[in-house]
Amino acid sequence: MKDVASEAGVSLGTVSKVVNGLPVGEIYKTKVEEAIRKLNYHVNSYAQGLKAGKTGTIALLIPNLWDPFFSVLTHHINRALQARQYRMLLCTTDFNAAQEQEYVTMLQNNKVDGIIGLTCNPALAVPESIPFVSIDRSMGSGIPCVACDNFMGGQLAAEKLADLGCRRVAFLRTGSSLANEPNKRKAGFENGCLSRKLKYEMLILGDEESYDKFDAFLTEHKIDGKLSFDGIFCVTDKIARYVINVLKKMNIRVPEDVQVIGFDGIRQLGDFDYLCSTIVQPVQEMAQLCVDLLFQEASPARPQLYCLPVSYVCGGTTREIT
Amino acid sequence: MKDVASEAGVSLGTVSKVVNGLPVGEIYKTKVEEAIRKLNYHVNSYAQGLKAGKTGTIALLIPNLWDPFFSVLTHHINRALQARQYRMLLCTTDFNAAQEQEYVTMLQNNKVDGIIGLTCNPALAVPESIPFVSIDRSMGSGIPCVACDNFMGGQLAAEKLADLGCRRVAFLRTGSSLANEPNKRKAGFENGCLSRKLKYEMLILGDEESYDKFDAFLTEHKIDGKLSFDGIFCVTDKIARYVINVLKKMNIRVPEDVQVIGFDGIRQLGDFDYLCSTIVQPVQEMAQLCVDLLFQEASPARPQLYCLPVSYVCGGTTREIT
Repeated sequence: MKDVASEAGVSLGTVSKVVNGLPVGEIYKTKVEEAIRKLNYHVNSYAQGLKAGKTGTIALLIPNLWDPFFSVLTHHINRALQARQYRMLLCTTDFNAAQEQEYVTMLQNNKVDGIIGLTCNPALAVPESIPFVSIDRSMGSGIPCVACDNFMGGQLAAEKLADLGCRRVAFLRTGSSLANEPNKRKAGFENGCLSRKLKYEMLILGDEESYDKFDAFLTEHKIDGKLSFDGIFCVTDKIARYVINVLKKMNIRVPEDVQVIGFDGIRQLGDFDYLCSTIVQPVQEMAQLCVDLLFQEASPARPQLYCLPVSYVCGGTTREIT
Repeated sequence: MKDVASEAGVSLGTVSKVVNGLPVGEIYKTKVEEAIRKLNYHVNSYAQGLKAGKTGTIALLIPNLWDPFFSVLTHHINRALQARQYRMLLCTTDFNAAQEQEYVTMLQNNKVDGIIGLTCNPALAVPESIPFVSIDRSMGSGIPCVACDNFMGGQLAAEKLADLGCRRVAFLRTGSSLANEPNKRKAGFENGCLSRKLKYEMLILGDEESYDKFDAFLTEHKIDGKLSFDGIFCVTDKIARYVINVLKKMNIRVPEDVQVIGFDGIRQLGDFDYLCSTIVQPVQEMAQLCVDLLFQEASPARPQLYCLPVSYVCGGTTREIT
């Protein structure tokens, strides 16, 4: 800025006024602008951010980007922030609670304007000074949580299986010991089964158990070459794909012998076919809402939890009645 | 910092010295550290970055995150930067040349320490003051380019098809009018076909043409219910998956009637099976090299192009001889 002042033959204060859009005589303004062009001077945005207490930067805490659900969510959050002229710091956490806390502390030091987080640390301490929006997990007062309607999704899966003619179904999931929104898929599914008088069995893997348990469960339930279920609801598309591969090896046909519904709505290669019949999360709408909430004034009247509607699509692993 | 000085009963200069790790009497240091703890004072890293001319931040320009190749690459770049205690600004560009240029200009204003970019703007102007590493496209002197060995990958695909017993093959690709490294897959494939005396036909879609052309090409080459190729090399896994679906609808069996090899090494859901038999890009190694090069002193002796080795995996769309 000193060079600009010297080039324009004006005081440093005048340059500062022009750069910050404050009123200044037209002749001085022209001189400064010419000097800026000539010197190819760039406003140092960090210095500006520091002054205004705004950095124009939002951080996203997300477990990883190789899981398509996380990467597509990240993509849409990035685009929604760009539309608001905001930059995004990407912080992958690999489900590591300590790393999540480290990030939040680091981000506080760097004075980001806000954080959007899909986190797993039940004790995550977020300073009140940073606007925070949580995905899929309620983090207490003042922090809005955005999720799809997981309960309704579970119920919809049960109702669909009933509509598609199933009589006895299985529910396969990995269990998270952490209270979170996706856990409500279970209650929704049970509710749907009860209301439709659908018999069901459940297998829930613990945090540390491997998918091999699904193989064992299915093998146990194969009697005289036939599976004792005609429908399976898997709590994620990932488990559904795994289970479909296992069934194939067991010579059980999907959807002829058993129909399978997953959850998430993941598409192959991002924009090809759905991986399976599934309950679709409205990922783009969730991303947009996270960003909108970050910029919304907090108020006591603001809801704690925002649930966006899910939908069902057939992805070839169910027998739709045409 | 004023509050800390006042709390500790020392001068502002003493606080500054302690915060910046400069020598100061032990008693003063203890006083300042106690005041910092008491006031829960956080070092403002932007102010620090400004002073040192370092922000601890690297920007990544990438087309999108819903394409698994981009999202997995982004994941590994993020982790490699984290290992160096660097933050990453994520900038998705949607293959928009103007947006790429806007980002580079914005990033210059914000004084990031460097940029890693997978870009498509042939005229992208990168200021010399910002270290830049390009992925998949040579951008001229001083900017290193990281890619897999695309030529070798194309050649390997041809050799594999020959080894697997193919006599007449097709090469399907989308063409980019922009000079870039992946374009070398074509020359490598032709080279491999010539050396193995493999007959080949080629279909190259223009930038704006849709995948429908692949359908038409394959239909034209189905004579008396038989495809006139016994092998197909697709320039990406995405095209391979598309083509496999088309072949299925045409009642042509993969791999029994025709073997298909793709390129990229994408796995379903990030860590499940490969989508098809494919030439695997070493994505993690490419990410690590991008980050390493960013921190390497530029020198005239530094290579312009870094090609990392590819490998072949069978993903069920070829008939391996066992």
